Amino acid sequence: MRNVIAVLLSLLLTVTGCTSGEGTADPLSAWNDVPAKTSITEFVERVTTGDTPDFVEPEDRIAVFDNDGTLWAEAPLPFQAAFVIDELKRRAPQEPALAADPMVQAALNGDVATLLAGDRHEGLLHVLALTHTGMTTGEFDQAVTNWLARARHPRFDRPYDQLTYAPQQQLLSYLRDNGFRTYIVSGGGADFMRVFSQRVYGIPPEQVVGSTGTTRYELRDGKPVLVKTLDYVFVDDKAGKPSGIHEFIGRRPILAVGNSDGDQAMLEYTTIDNPLPSLGVLVHHTDAEREYAYDADPPASGKLVTALQEAGPRGWTVVDMKNDWNTVFAQ
Amino acid sequence: MRNVIAVLLSLLLTVTGCTSGEGTADPLSAWNDVPAKTSITEFVERVTTGDTPDFVEPEDRIAVFDNDGTLWAEAPLPFQAAFVIDELKRRAPQEPALAADPMVQAALNGDVATLLAGDRHEGLLHVLALTHTGMTTGEFDQAVTNWLARARHPRFDRPYDQLTYAPQQQLLSYLRDNGFRTYIVSGGGADFMRVFSQRVYGIPPEQVVGSTGTTRYELRDGKPVLVKTLDYVFVDDKAGKPSGIHEFIGRRPILAVGNSDGDQAMLEYTTIDNPLPSLGVLVHHTDAEREYAYDADPPASGKLVTALQEAGPRGWTVVDMKNDWNTVFAQ
Repeated sequence: MRNVIAVLLSLLLTVTGCTSGEGTADPLSAWNDVPAKTSITEFVERVTTGDTPDFVEPEDRIAVFDNDGTLWAEAPLPFQAAFVIDELKRRAPQEPALAADPMVQAALNGDVATLLAGDRHEGLLHVLALTHTGMTTGEFDQAVTNWLARARHPRFDRPYDQLTYAPQQQLLSYLRDNGFRTYIVSGGGADFMRVFSQRVYGIPPEQVVGSTGTTRYELRDGKPVLVKTLDYVFVDDKAGKPSGIHEFIGRRPILAVGNSDGDQAMLEYTTIDNPLPSLGVLVHHTDAEREYAYDADPPASGKLVTALQEAGPRGWTVVDMKNDWNTVFAQ
Repeated sequence: MRNVIAVLLSLLLTVTGCTSGEGTADPLSAWNDVPAKTSITEFVERVTTGDTPDFVEPEDRIAVFDNDGTLWAEAPLPFQAAFVIDELKRRAPQEPALAADPMVQAALNGDVATLLAGDRHEGLLHVLALTHTGMTTGEFDQAVTNWLARARHPRFDRPYDQLTYAPQQQLLSYLRDNGFRTYIVSGGGADFMRVFSQRVYGIPPEQVVGSTGTTRYELRDGKPVLVKTLDYVFVDDKAGKPSGIHEFIGRRPILAVGNSDGDQAMLEYTTIDNPLPSLGVLVHHTDAEREYAYDADPPASGKLVTALQEAGPRGWTVVDMKNDWNTVFAQ
């Protein structure tokens, strides 16, 4: 009889996930025991404790994360920009017309001023079009997969997808273990991020909100394909982030994590006048030794000035990378 | 001791959902035992039986459903068009400028030809703009909620959201019970459908893909709002459906259910050259007595000609509403 009870209990505990000893290890061990960490764990405990006014139903536990500079590094260039340059380098030897293109030459020479000239940054859009359109979505996925397998970060000499932050990977898991759904809401391309989001972050494609171009449906040799275009581009940055959240998720998040002024509107939308309890978090890059130190004058993207000013009055948590994280990279 | 075992067992069975007697009732009782029903249940059994080549992992069990004419009725007018006309009627007495607008008058007089004149259907876009823009997303939600509470279908004299199909409601539940995620992929407005999708279909807002306009983020009196605009409109119909699926879900579905030529591309994208097992289903409106009978010449929307021709060669299941459903409406 005791055996029967033991078997039943063990089965029950397996089903409910309550195995003995669980919860003893710190799920956020890469975070030092500082106020930033406490503000996050206290918030999560607050919204997940039943029979309290601050309890939030699991379907409303939406957490949104910026990607570049928040989940992985973004210096010296956002990694998708490195992909663009590497693709142009790879293709130029076999494609003379491409090699002769003045904007391709500007990109290969690192002449950012030429690319950004003009109100609409025509040069940049042109090299984006060269590397992000005219192929099917399947062909683009393969190009990104190949690049991730081949390319290495210039300073850390590792594949780019090994430059995710250990504390943030832990935070994603910790939130999911507490019934949150974790979304990426990034200015990066959705198609680009979806190639690796499941493998690298455990975030499935349908939970990746990013910048998108249109696609054109075709039957090619009788088989359905989607051809990537830039006929219309939705830029999921700044004021675009609340719009993207509304369009793709249709709910207001209760937790938003970012690192730049591009995330300010997303943090406002999450934390101001939200009928549910909410938390905003900003990662401040303060660690030149282990990663990078920047705010007002970033290497390329990730300027952080106005959002940092707003953090105090809004009660947002500011993470000091150097002091608050005992480990930076996940691998 | 027996009590302890009974309590544990009952707890275990509650947790696993295995209560005695479950599974004995037919989950698709509103479907007659016809080949259409069998094709669906055989497909679901095929992709959910472990250790077989056709087993599909739960994360890939994506089912997409058109809404108008597939999950609820679409005659004599798509219900969102009825909302537009009712809104104009409601507002015209207090808004003289609105009442004097020639396109509003055309809409109120049922003068569809005037609304659809011109290559870009300027009249239709104009009345859509009047009823779908210039307000916040919250104000729009409230307008739809109020309309659903007040309006009644001209023939069936019931609230519109009581005109969903019982067999399809059962199919949605049956699929979810078998580990599918059910999505709406409709030409209707996403913001419109999200007001009732959870309550009426058990489909949460993030699983509703529809036509969308842009929104503009503002802090109004210090509070974040999204103002609806038609600066850019994504039309989630015909070739737009595969694009919408790619953009919002980022995975190919394995089951697609529609009822018109507007769903043809979605069924192609789901069933042709899909590396996973897949099924396409078309609902044919054949029941003038209990609902409506139409295909080539529908009352307003829902033309079904080329998709029906393609059904045979593609192996799509065609549902004959009159003969295959023993109940039509869910309430």
